[in-house]
Amino acid sequence: MEGPIGIFDSGVGGLTVAREVFKILPAEAVVYFGDVGRSPYGGRSKEIIAQFTAQDVAFLTEHRVKFVICACNTASAVALHEVAGRHCVPMVGVIEPGARAAAARTRAGRVGVIGTTATINSDAYARTIRGIDPAVKVFSVACPLFVPLAEEGYIEREATRLIARDYLKTMRDVGIDTLILGCTHYPLLRSVIAEAMGDGVALIDSGEETARAARDALVAGGLLRGGEAPGEHTFYVSDVPEKFTQVAARFLGTMIDRVTRVDISRY
Amino acid sequence: MEGPIGIFDSGVGGLTVAREVFKILPAEAVVYFGDVGRSPYGGRSKEIIAQFTAQDVAFLTEHRVKFVICACNTASAVALHEVAGRHCVPMVGVIEPGARAAAARTRAGRVGVIGTTATINSDAYARTIRGIDPAVKVFSVACPLFVPLAEEGYIEREATRLIARDYLKTMRDVGIDTLILGCTHYPLLRSVIAEAMGDGVALIDSGEETARAARDALVAGGLLRGGEAPGEHTFYVSDVPEKFTQVAARFLGTMIDRVTRVDISRY
Repeated sequence: MEGPIGIFDSGVGGLTVAREVFKILPAEAVVYFGDVGRSPYGGRSKEIIAQFTAQDVAFLTEHRVKFVICACNTASAVALHEVAGRHCVPMVGVIEPGARAAAARTRAGRVGVIGTTATINSDAYARTIRGIDPAVKVFSVACPLFVPLAEEGYIEREATRLIARDYLKTMRDVGIDTLILGCTHYPLLRSVIAEAMGDGVALIDSGEETARAARDALVAGGLLRGGEAPGEHTFYVSDVPEKFTQVAARFLGTMIDRVTRVDISRY
Repeated sequence: MEGPIGIFDSGVGGLTVAREVFKILPAEAVVYFGDVGRSPYGGRSKEIIAQFTAQDVAFLTEHRVKFVICACNTASAVALHEVAGRHCVPMVGVIEPGARAAAARTRAGRVGVIGTTATINSDAYARTIRGIDPAVKVFSVACPLFVPLAEEGYIEREATRLIARDYLKTMRDVGIDTLILGCTHYPLLRSVIAEAMGDGVALIDSGEETARAARDALVAGGLLRGGEAPGEHTFYVSDVPEKFTQVAARFLGTMIDRVTRVDISRY
């Protein structure tokens, strides 16, 4: 099918999902929207996250996307289900792929989830994992400082290690063997999180899992694009594109040239 | 004069200014708008901060305010001057009052300014201080992690001390004797900042200075409200009011009951 895949996120974090999609679905055209003008979503209310998510999806559907990937954990956890019900385009969020991977991975039946305050308060990961395997125990902790630390590049620093040890202390105490990185920024802090958790804990990157789930859904739905020609990638943001372009180079490992600003409040 | 004073901020930080206004101008009615649905402003572009500031002011002028206080350092630094030029209501931002206080206070003629990335990049404090006293040397450092640390209540913690020492190292090295807290959140970290700077450095709270400047401007402009009756205080926010009400109790030291949500994107 000819339409592009739409990917949206509250900002730049979703580019980790986009990178994976570019890799495993090279023939697909992709329209990416990053709501950098209103990020981060993770500390906001359910109501406003729902409003922002509806606008993000409305923007993408205007681009005649055949499939929508919600790369934002907060939007996926809080609002996607409701918004998806109002559209006929198929959509996938990051919660279910991450939850499935964790449920399949845990040996001890004890899974940890870390994410933004809104994601954790929604209980979406725990609910989804219980739906897959009611025997799995889920422990959740919000880590609100991880997003600003990752965005500021405050990674291999003693302060970040102290904050990670502080946030993850209860996770260590309850003896999980699998930890879901339930926010697209967290893979940037993977080494610090791994160090704080110690050996023997598998880290699940929901973004990576989601790209694979999207491919499976496209195959199952007969929506794959044929041919050998590489798909076109276009990027839209809700603030001026300069900063996004810089950060995108770090996230994607390549420069992008076409980034357009849109007024998302009009959707 | 009968109209209320309008105060706006990117979120809750401006309540430190509002508290001061309530204290020194008890007869004045005040309309407060906190753009919590789009906060923080400090990492965004000049363009989008200007758009948000224009909407915040448009909302207040619809409430027939006689005077506007921009309690947000970022908006004051980047956009207020331009927005003020399009309205006939007098306005004051936090930059000039803070700059005046610092220029008056320094003995060594060496002033430091800390703030968000947008505030520091604008060079607004340095430019204003040089305008007041060209002999004063100004040193500026952006401290982007201070806002999330303050909002998370991550105050008396070793990680916060390490980050403060890191951010303020060059400030210590250059030998300033006066430091402007150029963000309304920073007074919450006052003890940590004071510790990192060591003795002999005066900390200037721009918010406090601004409340006094507003009173002076109202007196000079014949805009003071007469009578003994306490003024009414009303609060508007751009996200659901619950979280704001909680945080407001901490900032104001008293519960507020009337908080209304508005859709600021329509202004």
